Amino acid sequence: MKYSKLFGKTIKETPSDATLISHKLLYKGGFLRESTAGRYYLLPLGLKVQQKIQKIIKEEMDSAEAQELITPVLHPKALWEETNRTNSVGFELMSIKDRNEFEFVLGGTAEEMLVDLVRKFQLSYKDLPVNLYQFSIKFRDELRARGGLLRVREFLMKDAYSFHVSEEDFKKEYENMKKTYTKIFERLGLKTIIVESDNGYIGGEYCHEFVVESEVGESRFLVNPDGSYAAHEDVVKFVPEKKNIAEKEESLKEVEAVRGKTMEDGAKFHKLPLWQQIKDVLFVDEKGRFILSIIRGDYDVNETKLKHIIKAYQLRHATEDEIREKIHSEPGFISPVGIKEIVKKGIEIIIVADETLSTVKNSYGGANKKNRDLLNMNMGRDYKPDITSDIALAREGDLAPDGSGPLKEKRGIEVGNIFQLGFHYSSKMKGAEFTDADGSKKPYYMGCYGIGLGRSLATIVEVFHDDKGIIWPESVAPYQVHLIGLDMDEAEKVYKRSLKTSEEVYKSLLAEGIEVLFDDRDVSAGIKFTDADLIGIPYRVVVSKRNEGKLEIKRRDKGETEFKTLGQLLSLVSH
Amino acid sequence: MKYSKLFGKTIKETPSDATLISHKLLYKGGFLRESTAGRYYLLPLGLKVQQKIQKIIKEEMDSAEAQELITPVLHPKALWEETNRTNSVGFELMSIKDRNEFEFVLGGTAEEMLVDLVRKFQLSYKDLPVNLYQFSIKFRDELRARGGLLRVREFLMKDAYSFHVSEEDFKKEYENMKKTYTKIFERLGLKTIIVESDNGYIGGEYCHEFVVESEVGESRFLVNPDGSYAAHEDVVKFVPEKKNIAEKEESLKEVEAVRGKTMEDGAKFHKLPLWQQIKDVLFVDEKGRFILSIIRGDYDVNETKLKHIIKAYQLRHATEDEIREKIHSEPGFISPVGIKEIVKKGIEIIIVADETLSTVKNSYGGANKKNRDLLNMNMGRDYKPDITSDIALAREGDLAPDGSGPLKEKRGIEVGNIFQLGFHYSSKMKGAEFTDADGSKKPYYMGCYGIGLGRSLATIVEVFHDDKGIIWPESVAPYQVHLIGLDMDEAEKVYKRSLKTSEEVYKSLLAEGIEVLFDDRDVSAGIKFTDADLIGIPYRVVVSKRNEGKLEIKRRDKGETEFKTLGQLLSLVSH
Repeated sequence: MKYSKLFGKTIKETPSDATLISHKLLYKGGFLRESTAGRYYLLPLGLKVQQKIQKIIKEEMDSAEAQELITPVLHPKALWEETNRTNSVGFELMSIKDRNEFEFVLGGTAEEMLVDLVRKFQLSYKDLPVNLYQFSIKFRDELRARGGLLRVREFLMKDAYSFHVSEEDFKKEYENMKKTYTKIFERLGLKTIIVESDNGYIGGEYCHEFVVESEVGESRFLVNPDGSYAAHEDVVKFVPEKKNIAEKEESLKEVEAVRGKTMEDGAKFHKLPLWQQIKDVLFVDEKGRFILSIIRGDYDVNETKLKHIIKAYQLRHATEDEIREKIHSEPGFISPVGIKEIVKKGIEIIIVADETLSTVKNSYGGANKKNRDLLNMNMGRDYKPDITSDIALAREGDLAPDGSGPLKEKRGIEVGNIFQLGFHYSSKMKGAEFTDADGSKKPYYMGCYGIGLGRSLATIVEVFHDDKGIIWPESVAPYQVHLIGLDMDEAEKVYKRSLKTSEEVYKSLLAEGIEVLFDDRDVSAGIKFTDADLIGIPYRVVVSKRNEGKLEIKRRDKGETEFKTLGQLLSLVSH
Repeated sequence: MKYSKLFGKTIKETPSDATLISHKLLYKGGFLRESTAGRYYLLPLGLKVQQKIQKIIKEEMDSAEAQELITPVLHPKALWEETNRTNSVGFELMSIKDRNEFEFVLGGTAEEMLVDLVRKFQLSYKDLPVNLYQFSIKFRDELRARGGLLRVREFLMKDAYSFHVSEEDFKKEYENMKKTYTKIFERLGLKTIIVESDNGYIGGEYCHEFVVESEVGESRFLVNPDGSYAAHEDVVKFVPEKKNIAEKEESLKEVEAVRGKTMEDGAKFHKLPLWQQIKDVLFVDEKGRFILSIIRGDYDVNETKLKHIIKAYQLRHATEDEIREKIHSEPGFISPVGIKEIVKKGIEIIIVADETLSTVKNSYGGANKKNRDLLNMNMGRDYKPDITSDIALAREGDLAPDGSGPLKEKRGIEVGNIFQLGFHYSSKMKGAEFTDADGSKKPYYMGCYGIGLGRSLATIVEVFHDDKGIIWPESVAPYQVHLIGLDMDEAEKVYKRSLKTSEEVYKSLLAEGIEVLFDDRDVSAGIKFTDADLIGIPYRVVVSKRNEGKLEIKRRDKGETEFKTLGQLLSLVSH
C-alpha cells in the first residue's frame, strides 16, 4: 500500500476526551475515528489489525474443533422473554420494532439465539458435544463509554456456546477453551492472567476472566505471589487471621456510646481494636426482605457474595426511616443481638454473618438504641445468624485459600471470559433438549466463551507502545514492513548502479508476499520517521542514496539500525 | 471436517413456505435456518460458502485499489436527516433510541456514514480518488420477505463509496468497478448481464445492475439480440414504429361513445386500431399537482420515467371524485383537448405527452364528457403538451435505441449494482469538501457500488443445481472433496495391504491443504451418496473395499466415475 493513497493518515491532534494512550495513539496513527460516543469506524489500518486478530482467533477455535456460524443481528425479543433476560441483564438492552410491530432486541450476547437454533434440530447424544462460535457485532447500551476501544457500545465479539450431555463433558470443553484462549492471547502478544470471576445470576465455579495487567484496566483482582491463585475482587476467598479467639467470653454489657464519622472513631471511643467491632450493614433485596449482614470491623461486606448466598438479584441499603420504622432500631447502632424480637410484625429479617466473626471474641457495637453500645457480644451466645458464610471483601495482604500470601491487588483489562451456563438457558427454553442413549430427552448442559476483538486490539496498544507511538507485535501488525523512500526524485540518476530505487524494493517485497506500507510521499525524512514510529510497523526499511547500496533496517522494538541487502531483509521478515 | 460432527446435517423436509429451489436445497443441505422471516442463521456449511464469496470480492476490490474499512451498525439518525433520507428512501428504515434518547437508524446503505467519515478529514485533491468499501450487515424492513436468501430483511453487503474531484474522474472508477464486478461474478461462476437501471431520486446515466438471468428473478429487463443493449424495464429506450404519420389531418369531431372494460373495446367500438387511440392516465404527485400523461394506445405509461421528467418523488392515480370535481372531466373520457380550460380554478395540471404520439395522426379518445369521444385529435393542432418526452414502458418486440431488435424480455436476479451519486450527498452534507489544487473547497463527486453476498450465494444455487441437489462451482464450494468411507468397520482387516483406510485418505488430503468433508457415519452407502449429491461438493471420493486399492472419484457436475490413486486425486483437486 502506498502511504500517499492510504485513507486515514497520521494527525498531530488527539480528541479532547482522549485519556487512554491506546485511544490517543490509534487516533493519531489513523486507525480509527469515532462516529458517536462508543461507536467507532475502523479505518483501513485499524481494520487490518482487527482482521489479523480475527484470523488468529478463528484458527485456534477451528483447531479446537469449534464450528463457526453466524446469527442474525436482530434477536426476536420473545426469546429473551423466555429466559427472562429482558429484565435481568446487566447491560441495557436496546429494542426495536419492525413495520409489522414485531419486536427485536440488539443482542449483547447470543445465548437465546444459539439455543433457539440448536432446538430446531433433533440432536442426539452422538452429535454432542458441539461448540458453535461466531464473530458478530454486539451492542451494550452503556451509560458511559470510555474514549477508545476499551469500553464501547458496539463491538465485534467472538462468542462461542457449547452444548453437552453433562457437566462432566462440559468440564473437558472448559479446559479445552482455557488452553485455546491462552494460546490465542499468546499469539496476540498478550500475557494473560486467568482470574476467577463472578458468574452473576448463573453462578457455579466455572467462570474465569482472561486479564491483561494494566493500570487502565477496570478489572480489580487479587493474586498470590506465585500467580497460582488469582481472583476478581468480588469472589476472592481468603484465610482470615485469627484474633482473640483464645480469650474468655465476658458478660454482655450495655454502655453509653457516641458515634463519630468513621468506624475508627468507635474504636477510639471504646479504646478497643477495630477488628473487635461488629460492622452491621442492613440491605433490602428485590423481594423486600431485610438482610442484616454483619462482619468484623476491619472488613467490608462483599455484595456479590452476599447476593449469591441469599439468592437475590438486587440489594439496596435500607433507609434511615426503614431502620427506625420497620426494624425499630437506630441508624448507626444496629445490632444482631435481639433484633429479631424488636422488628415490626410481618417484616422478614435475615441475619448473615461473615466467617471473620468466628475469629473474634467479645465484640462490641450498637445496641439497637440511640447512643448505646453493647460490649462483649459473642456469636452463638448473644446472637444466632441465620447463615454464616464468606461475605467478606478480601484485602491486599490477606492470605490465599491455600495459605500462600500475601495477596496483592492488581488491575487489568478483561480481554476474554469463559464460563458455565449450566442448564440455565436450556431449562428455561422449551425444547432445548437432546435425545440421550436411553431414548430420554434431556436439557443441554452449556458453556459460553467470549473475546472482544476491539478491546484486545486496544489492549495490545496499551501494552506495546513507547512515547513515540505504537509497537505492534508481528502477529497483528497491519503491515510487516514500513518502507521509506528518501531522495525519491533523485532516484533515477543516483541509484542506477548502486541500489534499487524504493519503488523497486517495494515491488520486490510485494512479489515475495510481504505486506508493505510504502511511504512514497514528497515530505521530509523527519516526518516519515515520526509517522513510522507512530504507526508502529515492526520493520522500518529506508532506501536512501546515503546508504551505499544497502537497506537501512530498524526494528520498531529495538534501538539499533542495521544495513542489509534485500535478500537479507527477506529472510528476516516473517511472511 | 468429519460429517458425524458437523452441525447442520441434511434433512428431508423443507419449510412449508419454501418455493425457491435455492431455499429448499440450502435448507435441506444444512446451509441455513430461518430465525424470523427474512433473517437467517448461516450454519457452518453456509457460512463457509459466504466466506469464500467474501474472499473473492475482497481480493478483487483490493486489486482494484479500493480500501476496506468498517462503519458502526447504528447510524446517527441526524445524518439521515441532513440528506432528507429519513423521508425519501425506498425501503423502510428502522430507528431506535438509546438510553440517552439518542436516535439511530439501522442502515440499508451507508452513504451518510461514509460522507460523515470523509468530512472528518481534511482531504486534498492529492488524496483523491479514494474508493472505500466494507462488508457489513444491512437492514431492509421489507413488507414481505421471500423465503430463502433472495429477498431478506438483514444481509451481509459489500458496499463501496468512491470520492472524486470531478465527474470525469468518477467515470474512470465507474469503468474500473464495472470490470471488477464482471471479474468477481465470473470467479463466483455467475454469468452476469450489465443492465441499465433507474437511479431513483439521484438520476443520471451511470447506473447499472449486474443481473443473472433466472426465472425466479425480480428484475425485468429487455435485451437486444446480441446483448449489446440491456436495460431495466423502467428505463428501456426504444424506437417506436412510425404509424400513419403520412396521413392528412382530418377535422376534430365529437361522437357518441360507449366504454367497455378494456382499451381494446374502445378500438372495436370505433373500428380503429388500438395504436390510434390516446391513452390518458391522470396522476397526482406529492405536491398535489395533477399530471395528465398521454400515450399511444398500444403502450403503457412508465411511472419511473414520468417521475424523473416532472421531478416528483411519488405518484398516485387520481380518484374518480377528483377527476369530476377538480378536473371537471369524466373518468374514462379524459382528453388533453381543452382540459386546461375546464379544470377548477387554482388546480395545476401538467400535460406530459409520450413521444409515441408523434408517430400517429388523427387519434381518437375521450372528450372530457361522459359517453362522448373525439376523433381526429392531432398534437400541436388540438392539444399542446407542456412536456413531450419518452414516458413509455417498452415492450418485447420493440427496437433498441440503435435500431437493433427485436428487444426480448428477460427476468433475472440482481446480484450487484453500480451507480453515480454525483453531488447528491456531498452537497447536502455540510463540510463534505476537498481542497482543490487552487486552494478552493469543492464538494466530492461520488459513486456507489454494492454486492449482496447472501443473494449471490442463493443465485449460485439457482443456477447450479440438478434434481439431486446443489452443484457448487469449485471457487465457492464449502469443501473441495466429499470423502465417503464405506465398509469402515472392516477397514482394519480388509485394507491393510490393498488400500489405505478412509481415515488415512482423509488425513493425507488434509495434510495437502485440501478442504475435505469426510462422511464417517455409520449409515448406508445410499444415504451417503444421496447426501453428497444434495450438499454438492465438487469431488466425491469413495473409499471402499470393492475398489481394489483405488479411489472412486466422481465430479458432482459430471456423470462418469473414475478410479484413481491418491496421488492422481491430489493433482486433480485445486488447492
